[in-house]
Amino acid sequence: VTALLSPNELEARLQATGIERYHNRHPFHTLMNSGGLAKSQLQAWALNRYYYQAIIPIKDSVILSRMTDPALRRIWRLRIIDHDGDSDQDGGIARWFALAEGLGLDRAYVASLAGILPATRFAVEAYVHFVREKSLLEAIASSLTEMFSPETISVRVAGMLKNYDYITPKVLAYFEKRLTQAPRDANFALDYVKREARTPEQQQAAIRALIFKCDMLWSMLDALHFAYVTPGLIPPGAFVPGEPQ
Amino acid sequence: VTALLSPNELEARLQATGIERYHNRHPFHTLMNSGGLAKSQLQAWALNRYYYQAIIPIKDSVILSRMTDPALRRIWRLRIIDHDGDSDQDGGIARWFALAEGLGLDRAYVASLAGILPATRFAVEAYVHFVREKSLLEAIASSLTEMFSPETISVRVAGMLKNYDYITPKVLAYFEKRLTQAPRDANFALDYVKREARTPEQQQAAIRALIFKCDMLWSMLDALHFAYVTPGLIPPGAFVPGEPQ
Repeated sequence: VTALLSPNELEARLQATGIERYHNRHPFHTLMNSGGLAKSQLQAWALNRYYYQAIIPIKDSVILSRMTDPALRRIWRLRIIDHDGDSDQDGGIARWFALAEGLGLDRAYVASLAGILPATRFAVEAYVHFVREKSLLEAIASSLTEMFSPETISVRVAGMLKNYDYITPKVLAYFEKRLTQAPRDANFALDYVKREARTPEQQQAAIRALIFKCDMLWSMLDALHFAYVTPGLIPPGAFVPGEPQ
Repeated sequence: VTALLSPNELEARLQATGIERYHNRHPFHTLMNSGGLAKSQLQAWALNRYYYQAIIPIKDSVILSRMTDPALRRIWRLRIIDHDGDSDQDGGIARWFALAEGLGLDRAYVASLAGILPATRFAVEAYVHFVREKSLLEAIASSLTEMFSPETISVRVAGMLKNYDYITPKVLAYFEKRLTQAPRDANFALDYVKREARTPEQQQAAIRALIFKCDMLWSMLDALHFAYVTPGLIPPGAFVPGEPQ
C-alpha cells in the first residue's frame, strides 16, 4: 500500500519523475543542442514534431469537453487560444510552421503529415486517447511535462543558435513564446493536481500520467533517432532527406 | 435515390425543416409566451433548461476537438467563450443563472441538477453523444437550430415582458445577448454545411442532424409539459414547486 502524500511531497515526486524521464535527457536532444545533427536530421525532427504541435489544441479541446466547471474551462481554453492564435500568421502552430520553413521544409508537405514516422503518429494519438479515456485528473496531470520545458527550451535555444549558423531567433520564435506560456500553464496544472489528488490512488495515478507523457515524448525521439541517426533505417513512406517532398 | 441539391436548395430544405419542427411551435412555448404559465411552471422550465445551457460549452468543446483546421477552431471557440464568459458574473451560463434566480430559484439548487427531469438529462446528453459520434458535418449541422432562434427569442421576450409582471429585461438578459450571437453562429454553420455537404448522402445527413436537434429540444418541452402542465405527473425525485429545494 502507498501512503497519502502531502501536496508538497506529491510535487517533489512529480519533479523527480520529470528529472528522471523528461526527454531533454534523450541522446537525440543532446546531439541537437550540441550541434551534432545535420540540417536534414533537424528537418526530420521539425517535421515529426509538427504532428505533436498540431494535435495539442485537439487534446486540449478534449480536456475542455470533460470540464464541467466553467471557471476551469476559462483557464484551460487559453491553451487553445495560444496554440491556434488569432489568424493563420499567429499562434503556436504558425510558429512551428515558421520553424519548419526556416529549416527548408515545404509548409504544405509538413501540414500533409505525409512524411511523418508511424511511431510519431501512434505516440501522438496515444496522447489524445489518454486524455479522453483516463480521469480528468490524469488528463491534466499528463500536461505536467510543462514543468520541465522552460529550462529545456533555454538550453536548446542557446545551443541551437550557437551551433547552427542557419538557425536564427526568428526561426525559434515558437520556443521563446513557450518560455512565458509554459510556466503559467504548468503552475495551474500543478496546483490543480496537488489540490485534487486526495487519495493515494489518485496521487499515484497523477504520477503515472506524467510518466506516460514522458514516455510518449521519449518514444518520439527514439523513433527519430532510429530512422535518422542510428542505425538510420527510414521506414517505408517516411521523409527521406533530399528527396522531393 | 435522392438528387444532389444546390447549396441554396439545401438551405431551403433546412429552413423548411426548422419551420416544421423547431420548438417555438410546442404548446409549452405557446403557453409561456401568452402568459399562460404559473411562476412555478416557469421555474421548472428554467431549471430544466439550465442543464441544456450547462452542456453547450461541453458539446462545443467536443466539436472543437474534432476540428483539425485551426481556422475553423478559431471561429468555433467563440461559442465557448460566449457561453463561459470571462468570469463567474459573465457569459451565457451566468445569464441563465440570473434568469433562474429572477424566477425565484436557488442558484446552488439549479447548479446541482438535483431537480431536473430524467428526460431532460437523456435529451441533453444525447446531444453530446451525437456530436461525438456523428461526422463533423452532422455535428455542425445540429447547431442550425440557431437559424430559428432570433425570431423565436424576439417573440418570447416580448410575450414574457408583457404577460408576467415579475419578468424584467434584466431577468431575460440571456436572450438579448443571443440575438446577436445566434445569427453570427448560425451564418457560419450554414455556410459550412452548404459548402461541405457535397453528396446527396451528406446533404440528407445534414438535414437529419437538424431534425435530431429539433427532436431533442422538442422532447425537453414534452417532458416539461407532461410533468408540470398536463397531466402534471411529476416523476419521483424531480422538482416539486413550493417544496424546499
